[in-house]
Amino acid sequence: MKMKLIATLLAAVLAVPLALAHEVVTSPDGHISVTAGVKGGKPFYQVTRDGEPIINTSYLGFELNTGSLKDGFKVVSRARSSKNETWTQVWGEDKDVVNHYNELRLGLKQSKGLKLRLDVVFRVFNDGVGFRYEFPKQAGLTDFQIMDELTQVAMPTDAQAWTQPTQGTNYYESLWTKAPLSQKPEVSTPITIEAGDSLYMVLHDANLTDYASLNYKPVHMAGAAVTLVASLTPWQNGVKVYATAPFVTPWRTCIITRKPGDLITSKLMLNLNEPCKIADTSWITCGKYVGIWWGMHMKDYTWAQGPKHGATTANTRRYIDFAARHGLKGVLVEGWNYGWDGDWTRDNKFSYTKAYPDYDFEGLQKYALSKGVSLIAHNETGGFAKTYEDQMEDAFSLYERMGIHAIKTGYVNRLMDMKEDQHSQYGIRHYRKVIEAAARHKIMVVNHEPAMPSGLCRTYPNLISGEGFRGQEWNAWSNDGGNPPYHICILPFTRGLAGTMDFTPGIFNFTNKAVPKTHPQTTLAKQLAEYVLIYTPWQMAADEIENYEGQPAFQFIEDVPTNFERTLVLNAKIGNYLTIARKDRESDNWYIGSATDENPRDLELSLNFLDAGKQYKAMIYADGPGADYRTNPYPITFTTQQVRQGDVIKVHLAPSGGAAIEIVPVLPVANK
Amino acid sequence: MKMKLIATLLAAVLAVPLALAHEVVTSPDGHISVTAGVKGGKPFYQVTRDGEPIINTSYLGFELNTGSLKDGFKVVSRARSSKNETWTQVWGEDKDVVNHYNELRLGLKQSKGLKLRLDVVFRVFNDGVGFRYEFPKQAGLTDFQIMDELTQVAMPTDAQAWTQPTQGTNYYESLWTKAPLSQKPEVSTPITIEAGDSLYMVLHDANLTDYASLNYKPVHMAGAAVTLVASLTPWQNGVKVYATAPFVTPWRTCIITRKPGDLITSKLMLNLNEPCKIADTSWITCGKYVGIWWGMHMKDYTWAQGPKHGATTANTRRYIDFAARHGLKGVLVEGWNYGWDGDWTRDNKFSYTKAYPDYDFEGLQKYALSKGVSLIAHNETGGFAKTYEDQMEDAFSLYERMGIHAIKTGYVNRLMDMKEDQHSQYGIRHYRKVIEAAARHKIMVVNHEPAMPSGLCRTYPNLISGEGFRGQEWNAWSNDGGNPPYHICILPFTRGLAGTMDFTPGIFNFTNKAVPKTHPQTTLAKQLAEYVLIYTPWQMAADEIENYEGQPAFQFIEDVPTNFERTLVLNAKIGNYLTIARKDRESDNWYIGSATDENPRDLELSLNFLDAGKQYKAMIYADGPGADYRTNPYPITFTTQQVRQGDVIKVHLAPSGGAAIEIVPVLPVANK
Repeated sequence: MKMKLIATLLAAVLAVPLALAHEVVTSPDGHISVTAGVKGGKPFYQVTRDGEPIINTSYLGFELNTGSLKDGFKVVSRARSSKNETWTQVWGEDKDVVNHYNELRLGLKQSKGLKLRLDVVFRVFNDGVGFRYEFPKQAGLTDFQIMDELTQVAMPTDAQAWTQPTQGTNYYESLWTKAPLSQKPEVSTPITIEAGDSLYMVLHDANLTDYASLNYKPVHMAGAAVTLVASLTPWQNGVKVYATAPFVTPWRTCIITRKPGDLITSKLMLNLNEPCKIADTSWITCGKYVGIWWGMHMKDYTWAQGPKHGATTANTRRYIDFAARHGLKGVLVEGWNYGWDGDWTRDNKFSYTKAYPDYDFEGLQKYALSKGVSLIAHNETGGFAKTYEDQMEDAFSLYERMGIHAIKTGYVNRLMDMKEDQHSQYGIRHYRKVIEAAARHKIMVVNHEPAMPSGLCRTYPNLISGEGFRGQEWNAWSNDGGNPPYHICILPFTRGLAGTMDFTPGIFNFTNKAVPKTHPQTTLAKQLAEYVLIYTPWQMAADEIENYEGQPAFQFIEDVPTNFERTLVLNAKIGNYLTIARKDRESDNWYIGSATDENPRDLELSLNFLDAGKQYKAMIYADGPGADYRTNPYPITFTTQQVRQGDVIKVHLAPSGGAAIEIVPVLPVANK
Repeated sequence: MKMKLIATLLAAVLAVPLALAHEVVTSPDGHISVTAGVKGGKPFYQVTRDGEPIINTSYLGFELNTGSLKDGFKVVSRARSSKNETWTQVWGEDKDVVNHYNELRLGLKQSKGLKLRLDVVFRVFNDGVGFRYEFPKQAGLTDFQIMDELTQVAMPTDAQAWTQPTQGTNYYESLWTKAPLSQKPEVSTPITIEAGDSLYMVLHDANLTDYASLNYKPVHMAGAAVTLVASLTPWQNGVKVYATAPFVTPWRTCIITRKPGDLITSKLMLNLNEPCKIADTSWITCGKYVGIWWGMHMKDYTWAQGPKHGATTANTRRYIDFAARHGLKGVLVEGWNYGWDGDWTRDNKFSYTKAYPDYDFEGLQKYALSKGVSLIAHNETGGFAKTYEDQMEDAFSLYERMGIHAIKTGYVNRLMDMKEDQHSQYGIRHYRKVIEAAARHKIMVVNHEPAMPSGLCRTYPNLISGEGFRGQEWNAWSNDGGNPPYHICILPFTRGLAGTMDFTPGIFNFTNKAVPKTHPQTTLAKQLAEYVLIYTPWQMAADEIENYEGQPAFQFIEDVPTNFERTLVLNAKIGNYLTIARKDRESDNWYIGSATDENPRDLELSLNFLDAGKQYKAMIYADGPGADYRTNPYPITFTTQQVRQGDVIKVHLAPSGGAAIEIVPVLPVANK
């Protein structure tokens, strides 16, 4: 009785409004609340879930070239709105996306200093929060420079987080590591935080448009265990962003879920991007492709012309024939165009229209089309963005005329145009230019060495995939043995939340002739599982085609679709294991992928998602007897079983093993 | 010392020439000897191996319509010859065949009775013996009737034998059973005898031409444990053979080996047939095919026209598309032609040129050819041989014009033309007529409900395959649950020694909607093993194509060839297990099939046959965890491993399980 009284008093004390102007906006389901306003003249927000603080009081603001935009503020307006809509993805992990949020717009004005107006807009979803700054057009603010964004995320606890360091992550290709936030250096987003058994948060930015990439630096401040302070990737002169009012920043996002799997199915990132700007999307397709590429890493071929040139007419025809035979729709050919000779990261002589003399570009594309296949044009820039922009219209016009609707771009160089960081506003502007130009020419883009995706594929669904993580290629040439076993159990919870990943799975030959100690640190079955676990609308079968000949496991690659109706996470522990089930968008088939880290694991997969009363056939590819990524990755077991809703499939995953399952309805035999 | 003396005396007694005229002819390697001559006026032969009797004194002769041709003989001439040649098979299990034998021709003449001359010709090979009777043209012998052939095979021991009873074996489709010879009823040939750990014998006939099929009846006679006496399949009037001098009988054959596997690689049967009579064999091909057929057994389709008609244009196009997509060269369509309506085993109204209205015969063949596929025309006769012979020229001319080079014939009826046994001289004459007519029109024949093969495919390599055993179809409709687990471990040692088998393996869906308790009594891996264990130059993938969709194990069916350079039996115990390795004729690839009976088994396969110094990749399909023909036939494990000459592959076979292995040389990646 006494305890209850104290608790009630305490609640009453906490409920007393603080001496500040603030507003509360709550998620549609009422669980998540954002309190935002001004405290001592400084804009702030805080986030609670069911009353518990998730983000403590965190301040907002900027340093501009003309002065501070961080204090002296009053709340001058408040506007609330709500949205509950369902929109359809051109392609994706789920066909229909629910966009349901409550919005609060706070109008702030400095009563001293620059005396500028600044709006902050919060959108609170059932699975998280996004906010952005808007600089209204106003007297005293035309062209301006953001010297620093001061956004904070004040964490109540020093939670464990999966991050990549900002420094040293050219192309965002570091390993993701887990440690308490306070022990982190400056890190790039996304940041995946495990703040307890039932609190998972991912910090990132959405709709990164004409701005700098967002990073966070952990610092110790009063009022929080650790405070993450925004740190934008700068121009070389130190400016973060060149802006002209009116101006809006990208959204600062925080996905908030109780289960790690719910991070993967969150659509918050997409919902905080603009609707599709491409009127006719009929040319945007999904599929799978092979490529003349892994052979370069294996030293069978060279990118440059010469006796071992990979991109020859005859070799490409072999790849086209293979693709046609196996129902794959694309053939990527790297090294087809002039510019690879010499040091292409310095020489800046790439042509995007002129093929090497031993490569019949137009003839090959005609041949490919005659077989229901298309070339995917490879455009390595060596980071020379201006050169690429100069040729872009000509090249894209040529590709469009030839019926080539997909390119893979690359930016292998520490700096863009030898001067600016790829992730600075300079780089972001270039990448956007490419996407928009490609859209005009009906070309899909797979962007290697990209900007970190931010959900932009909603607006430009021709931005189909990208890199920005350690892909399969590290299993070819890295001097650290390859991606570690836990890699695939982390990526979907980290980089995968930013956007689709061109991981290029499907290495079937684990012997690396070029760098013997390096190879995929997985079993063969786990290579198959990656086709479900890692989403992209165009999925590569990355190995040299010789290594697929006679391989029954290739059937799964033939069968697995790349466009889905619905995605479910069946189980997940970040860094340890993960199982995803996806329903094909074109049929009633389901596809399941499971993967584990270096530890073997037995999983029970409950098929509660199948249609009631329907009979299905499950075709299960699992690690076979003796499979182990260290000693013998090859054994793979294939089992067929009849299943119904509610049945359980038991799978054994080997050390760094996996399972891939195709579930198809049992239909009467087609008659006539 | 005393014992030795007695033995020596005994040997001396036995060595005393008996009071008869006889000759000895020995195999080229000297191990097998045939002694033949006349004893008390009766022609006889006996066989020893390394001095041990294998066949005791066995008498020869005939009852003719005019009298006996079994005694009163003297040896009037003796001729010896030898042959050592190597000939090449148009297709087969081994490309080159060594034909090496010593021959003895005994001229016999009756000094009383009919006073006729009769020659007996013996050929002794390293792996057995063949002999035949020749009736010279002579006074007193023009047209004659053989009322009984009196050939004996006198067995020194009452050995175990695998046989099919003559009675009740319509179409030779009884189960093969093992028992001592003395306990057998009259049995058809081949007869496979296990006369101890190192003596295996197979009795049969070779070059069955214008004669009756050979059966043997075990009787007890002095001088042997059990004596097999020839019993020819008669005409309904009791006559066995209508003959005109000069006349030769088929060869009576006895393969003799020390190991069961050597039975399988014996070429004695082929060597006792005439060389190829087809001058241009370029149109005789090898391949694999699918068919609209299993669906009828599953009650998805009907042979006759109607709402569930299987042989429709649309359905056939699906099968053609499937075949083209998977590199199969043939599509068999049953029920395409008029005559299936009503009781086709009585109505006798089949047309072999007129298609049902919903089947565009010519259009489909054009479509098939455009995709590198061809129809295989199905010709069910219902046993009405005369009707078939009447239409044969027209039909074969049509097929030839359309580019159809293969037919499958059928004779489902207890009697041919409602009157004569299929295996009588009447039937044998008809089957030969079909093969010869087909050869003239460049058509290959797969003969269901056939004559028991006798190696005739050497002479007419367009006789590519046949039935004459319990094929896969028994797993569809038999009321005894299907072929037992040991079935595949017997067939290659019994029926398989007579000729190629159109077993139609490859059932992937073990659920039988039509006869639920009946289904293949094997695992899925064993279905694959059958593609190696059961030889035929045109191998079917028998299941409905829907059941192959998404099945990685189908890769083995795509890959396994049907024409081989060389065949080895790696291990064998008749009725228990069997492993065969075959080298592709078109590449350096090897294919291995292993199967076991109802008992699980671990086998070690020594790869001594691989080329020295070469690196190979072995792709192993084996029974997966929990695989068991009784409970779950589906689990299959696929493993890749690098192998070299002398390496050992260990495989675990589930109850009624199997393994299928493809071994390919590891080659440098193709460049340009």
